[in-house]
Amino acid sequence: MNLFEERVRESFGRQKFMGTLGAEIRVVSEGVVEIEFAFSDALTQQNQYVHAGAITSILDSACGYAALSVAPEGCDVLSVEFKVNLLAPAVGERFVARSTVKRAGKKLTVCSADAFAIKDGQEKIVATMLATVINLPKT
Amino acid sequence: MNLFEERVRESFGRQKFMGTLGAEIRVVSEGVVEIEFAFSDALTQQNQYVHAGAITSILDSACGYAALSVAPEGCDVLSVEFKVNLLAPAVGERFVARSTVKRAGKKLTVCSADAFAIKDGQEKIVATMLATVINLPKT
Amino acid sequence: MNLFEERVRESFGRQKFMGTLGAEIRVVSEGVVEIEFAFSDALTQQNQYVHAGAITSILDSACGYAALSVAPEGCDVLSVEFKVNLLAPAVGERFVARSTVKRAGKKLTVCSADAFAIKDGQEKIVATMLATVINLPKT
Amino acid sequence: MNLFEERVRESFGRQKFMGTLGAEIRVVSEGVVEIEFAFSDALTQQNQYVHAGAITSILDSACGYAALSVAPEGCDVLSVEFKVNLLAPAVGERFVARSTVKRAGKKLTVCSADAFAIKDGQEKIVATMLATVINLPKT
Repeated sequence: MNLFEERVRESFGRQKFMGTLGAEIRVVSEGVVEIEFAFSDALTQQNQYVHAGAITSILDSACGYAALSVAPEGCDVLSVEFKVNLLAPAVGERFVARSTVKRAGKKLTVCSADAFAIKDGQEKIVATMLATVINLPKT
Repeated sequence: MNLFEERVRESFGRQKFMGTLGAEIRVVSEGVVEIEFAFSDALTQQNQYVHAGAITSILDSACGYAALSVAPEGCDVLSVEFKVNLLAPAVGERFVARSTVKRAGKKLTVCSADAFAIKDGQEKIVATMLATVINLPKT
Repeated sequence: MNLFEERVRESFGRQKFMGTLGAEIRVVSEGVVEIEFAFSDALTQQNQYVHAGAITSILDSACGYAALSVAPEGCDVLSVEFKVNLLAPAVGERFVARSTVKRAGKKLTVCSADAFAIKDGQEKIVATMLATVINLPKT
Repeated sequence: MNLFEERVRESFGRQKFMGTLGAEIRVVSEGVVEIEFAFSDALTQQNQYVHAGAITSILDSACGYAALSVAPEGCDVLSVEFKVNLLAPAVGERFVARSTVKRAGKKLTVCSADAFAIKDGQEKIVATMLATVINLPKT
């Protein structure tokens, strides 16, 4: 396991909210992170779709960890802001967020991420995020 | 209770994800909605702050319901997109999202919302959202 | 020239602001549009970079026309909203905005677009946009 | 004239793109900036409305200068990103962008801004921006 992968997995393990969502980190490579969770009633909105906030949560963590995977040693990251477009109702058995680093600067990293619903083995895009993450000295 | 308030509270009651967050709807007036939850370990990220995704979730629901409170009869609403700026670490005992309708159109409603952390009786802004919501015929 | 290409080029020709920027439409294919302009002093901000507003203008028009290229017959389009990240100072001889349709719905189309500075034959990304466009009956 | 007002007006004077738009800075107070321009054919899109890019340009400059007005001595500012909602067609005689600082941090400042069309002495909101600006040491 690479140093950045260790760093990302260790931090993810401390995000209790990811546990609440039933989310797991699947892929950690340099500048690319995948997080997914299974459908659960506990995550739904009024139409039984998964709530946009639950989808946004794994998109946000995926962007943060994609940024962390390319950050200088000894840095932590914080989300500055993000924008999400909801593209289709979040209906499926599993939901996966995939983030890639679009540009890594010294201070700020910009990531884009897509979220997909997986149903009967088919992936369908349900949301997309554009996010800004800041590198901070680890406290 | 007004018709729109009934409509909003009934829909909120069906959002199981709000229950998962421990969120309650506090204020429903025409074009203004407040949703809050108490701090819980289950909602935290790696630094023990509340996860941006949890804060975003109540901001999103508050915007959706503010839009629903001014929507034509027989409409449901869906979030089209939103942007969130995280302004300060979400540290506190309670967290409240307050949304107001900025402009209501026939199809699209634009809402802005702020999220505050409440600690020792003091409110501090921790995030702000600008959101677009669409009116859809109820299914 | 395809019907949609004609439709896009005719509308672009009526955007006088594109003329003010010295912008030209280069590529129009189904769901993909490119618009570019040359560096000019008239477009600069305080550091002699091209102003973010000028770059945003061609990103916005590129997204609108990418959406128009896939819109139903007899529709016009309007920008609902967009988000732009400025990734690097806009320094170069020419600037090009490339948009692609991310998801086309009946009412709303979501486009993403990147802007590049061209200098000494090299392209460098300087900005990225995520945009929502609405289809409206032509007036 | 206060020091920050001088700083803002001097920088605005170097933004040639503002001259191209016919824009003038009206109000500069601590954390609040207003920029406006008159309607001109040269700024229009295909329906003779003012182009979203022209409106965005004065919103962006207004946010940047609102941030600059509260920035530490010896800093310059750059736009990191912004999101704009277009709320109504930009039809009028004059157009004004008003920005206020939402939160000023050491590195990042978040501003919100509204744009209004003025017609027959009436103001109507046509767009709203939420923006992130970064403080940089002056070069």
